[in-house]
Amino acid sequence: MKHLLNILDLSTKEIYELIKVSNHIARNPKRYQNICAHKQLATLFFEPSTRTRLSFESAMLSLGGQVLGFSNANASSTAKGESVRDTIKVVSGYVDIIAMRHPKEGAPYVGVETTQVPLINAGDGGHFHPTQTLADLATIYNEAGRLDNLVIGVCGDLKYGRTVHSLIGAMSRYKNISFVLISPDELKIPEFVKKDILDKNHIPYKEVTSLEDSISKLDILYMTRIQKERFLDIKQFDRLKDSYVLDVKKMKNAKKSMKVLHPLPRVNEIAVEVDKDPRAVYFKQTVYGKYMRMALILKLLKEKKKPSNIKIKDTHISTKRCSNPHCISLVEQELEAKVYKDENKIVRCAYCDAEID
Amino acid sequence: MKHLLNILDLSTKEIYELIKVSNHIARNPKRYQNICAHKQLATLFFEPSTRTRLSFESAMLSLGGQVLGFSNANASSTAKGESVRDTIKVVSGYVDIIAMRHPKEGAPYVGVETTQVPLINAGDGGHFHPTQTLADLATIYNEAGRLDNLVIGVCGDLKYGRTVHSLIGAMSRYKNISFVLISPDELKIPEFVKKDILDKNHIPYKEVTSLEDSISKLDILYMTRIQKERFLDIKQFDRLKDSYVLDVKKMKNAKKSMKVLHPLPRVNEIAVEVDKDPRAVYFKQTVYGKYMRMALILKLLKEKKKPSNIKIKDTHISTKRCSNPHCISLVEQELEAKVYKDENKIVRCAYCDAEID
Amino acid sequence: MKHLLNILDLSTKEIYELIKVSNHIARNPKRYQNICAHKQLATLFFEPSTRTRLSFESAMLSLGGQVLGFSNANASSTAKGESVRDTIKVVSGYVDIIAMRHPKEGAPYVGVETTQVPLINAGDGGHFHPTQTLADLATIYNEAGRLDNLVIGVCGDLKYGRTVHSLIGAMSRYKNISFVLISPDELKIPEFVKKDILDKNHIPYKEVTSLEDSISKLDILYMTRIQKERFLDIKQFDRLKDSYVLDVKKMKNAKKSMKVLHPLPRVNEIAVEVDKDPRAVYFKQTVYGKYMRMALILKLLKEKKKPSNIKIKDTHISTKRCSNPHCISLVEQELEAKVYKDENKIVRCAYCDAEID
Repeated sequence: MKHLLNILDLSTKEIYELIKVSNHIARNPKRYQNICAHKQLATLFFEPSTRTRLSFESAMLSLGGQVLGFSNANASSTAKGESVRDTIKVVSGYVDIIAMRHPKEGAPYVGVETTQVPLINAGDGGHFHPTQTLADLATIYNEAGRLDNLVIGVCGDLKYGRTVHSLIGAMSRYKNISFVLISPDELKIPEFVKKDILDKNHIPYKEVTSLEDSISKLDILYMTRIQKERFLDIKQFDRLKDSYVLDVKKMKNAKKSMKVLHPLPRVNEIAVEVDKDPRAVYFKQTVYGKYMRMALILKLLKEKKKPSNIKIKDTHISTKRCSNPHCISLVEQELEAKVYKDENKIVRCAYCDAEID
Repeated sequence: MKHLLNILDLSTKEIYELIKVSNHIARNPKRYQNICAHKQLATLFFEPSTRTRLSFESAMLSLGGQVLGFSNANASSTAKGESVRDTIKVVSGYVDIIAMRHPKEGAPYVGVETTQVPLINAGDGGHFHPTQTLADLATIYNEAGRLDNLVIGVCGDLKYGRTVHSLIGAMSRYKNISFVLISPDELKIPEFVKKDILDKNHIPYKEVTSLEDSISKLDILYMTRIQKERFLDIKQFDRLKDSYVLDVKKMKNAKKSMKVLHPLPRVNEIAVEVDKDPRAVYFKQTVYGKYMRMALILKLLKEKKKPSNIKIKDTHISTKRCSNPHCISLVEQELEAKVYKDENKIVRCAYCDAEID
Repeated sequence: MKHLLNILDLSTKEIYELIKVSNHIARNPKRYQNICAHKQLATLFFEPSTRTRLSFESAMLSLGGQVLGFSNANASSTAKGESVRDTIKVVSGYVDIIAMRHPKEGAPYVGVETTQVPLINAGDGGHFHPTQTLADLATIYNEAGRLDNLVIGVCGDLKYGRTVHSLIGAMSRYKNISFVLISPDELKIPEFVKKDILDKNHIPYKEVTSLEDSISKLDILYMTRIQKERFLDIKQFDRLKDSYVLDVKKMKNAKKSMKVLHPLPRVNEIAVEVDKDPRAVYFKQTVYGKYMRMALILKLLKEKKKPSNIKIKDTHISTKRCSNPHCISLVEQELEAKVYKDENKIVRCAYCDAEID
């Protein structure tokens, strides 16, 4: 059985096929409107995320399927102390496919150990959010016309933004990609992204602090939000914040063919006036996201009998607990600490992939 | 594309047709049970309202359609600071029709600016609640046999009760209507309702404080709840409250043909013993409400390609913020203050219709 | 019209038929997948219970029906002070069948007074939870091969565990049943269960404190959770807790044919390592639960025109309020206290069945 926990669980060929199928669905919705009749999707959202949940639910309903679930953990048995393992085990006995979102990193890996049906990670803390990346890739492919030969600017909070890390990981598999990483010093891209993804794949990149100065070279501008809470020094935030707001004035320096993406929700990092610019494709991006989720659900249901695509990392039980405070292994009861050695011989947590000191 | 934000967005002819269709549905439910197959309704409830939400959801499901949404703002991206504008824009890319409820007045007018599908106001603070009024009108038409030639008593909190204001507005368009406005002095009908609706349409009315003394003349009695919180002087509330409770004793003085309506939920303003009286039609009213919502959904989906019925009031951007503390324009980010001049040359907020000082 | 409020509302013959139908559904799901087309189930959960709610919702969807409802009281009109009576009255005007869960004991009996459609009790406080017992019975029948000739161990919190009381009540109607009641002294089975169920039906039982010593004689082991909060003396809890945890070591002393059940969610009263033991059937139990709910929904919809099966106990209005602090009659407005005399001439509350002092 196949699952989707990390965008890298899918080959570039599989992603290309998902994009093709999603475009076919978009053009021929009636041919798909009964294809999942009598199939049930559970949307298990241990933390709220309306955008993602409604996208999944609308996707399944548009395939003729049915939906059930919960939209936050208070409404779930988790409030009574139930483990992720048991919840997934039980619900997977009721339904045909599960999309789960959880605030703890690595939670879907716990789910995969007991699920009896395909499992989709709809976001696990700051770790992964692969269906957002699928939406991003479909948007780039359809709006820019290609997934290679692109100069991609990513702007905002590059330190904590998991969508940014996933996007960089996913795009690093295409030819002739380069990145312009635009952020304040406080929120620069983490070392592990540079080392494990960019350097390893020989992807050119530069780190800059000015959106204004770098926008003219970009084919893609991927905007994200800068959160005030991230700054130790509020004055620093106030001084910086406007330089990371995309407005009509900054758009004037951009290429005619540049496309602006944003994972949404936005707060004020893109001025509303930009919405009218044809290069602003972030609302289209949500529609691509729905069609990609439809294609993904179809794929996973179809490939239910194929072997698992989740790399059973060469893990062993460890006596040492994961030191990532957001890791699922610290709260899930009776979950043994598991670790693996990555290609660079670094010992990592099998759930959240954090380095074990 | 047509929407429903205010009951006055519908002509009396359209309302009559909705009643006819709703009655046809009630008598022939099977003929409608697949009519919305593969159509999706989003119920976006930024504040909880079970009654209204379940009525909409059951209505859509009874038409063979599908439903998704959220039941309070905590479960929505709004908690992350997303604007109404963006939420409606995105969700309208997923579904075929939207019913939204919001605690802020005028919020659906913001939604109309970006929605790509028909939008129904399922209540915006103290402003409008047009589908409740549709339920009221269908109940009066079916139970009293007519929408004209009626003496209508409205009793309780006439100051803050939006359903009362909407009902008076809607009924003022029919012939030979008069109102008996029954309330304590603290909760009398506001001046603007008298001036802008009753006087303008030459509708006779009187204001009284005793339900007992006036019940005998009524064809319709529309009950509402009096909330303790509305009174500055609790002793005053305690002295008054029983005189606004409808009980079997007071019903004895009413006409045999009088009908009692209530928008529900009731707390104790109608004694449970009255439920058995055949003149009590407030539970039937909820069923009429469901069928009217079915008729409305059908109408809006059918007339999707017709021009908008939302009067683009002759608005202009104002430098002055709306002074209504409940207005959406005070909280929605980057929403410019817009105003218009009404027929009496009074300057009003384009969102919540409050007078701008 | 038939309802299900208490497992004893069903005869053993009806339960047997439900098991047969549920097994037929499990083997032939496609033959049932449209059987409830255009029927609506309302899941009215005045307190959260994901497990039970998702089981009901998946059951109805697997029958081709539709689902609407709410998952906690905050999202309901109850927050505005609406009575259970009115909520059930209104919702039963929208849908075909209702499953309700409520934190107050006896709440479904209030619902039955006004519902227009079949009502299922999905748990009312510490009172009843009959669909859990249906799941338990189907599990025992299918996994142990019979409902009679069984030595049944129930372990854990026997004082407050409503599932335990219901199971004992239900099993007491079968031949040659005996119980081993395993609990700490603080959490022994209440006197009324011994007197009114066990003694009355001449069921042999013994009360013991050691799971380890008694496991070898059991055909069925029904585990429940012991909550720390139940203990006045925390040291006592800490001393005891491990002896009520089922682990691989204790399982070694059990019969090869013994079956372990648990109503779930479990916290740590069954070690995860036991999950792999083929005698652990608590996850299968949840699947049996779904099929039993499907069978129950079918039965109640089919028997809609039959007379009510809810014993209209010979009640009379009482001037004395029920003294059970969890009784619905203390909070539901305008609900008269009703009492009845049971077979032993004890005066009981008609809602929660508590003895009236």
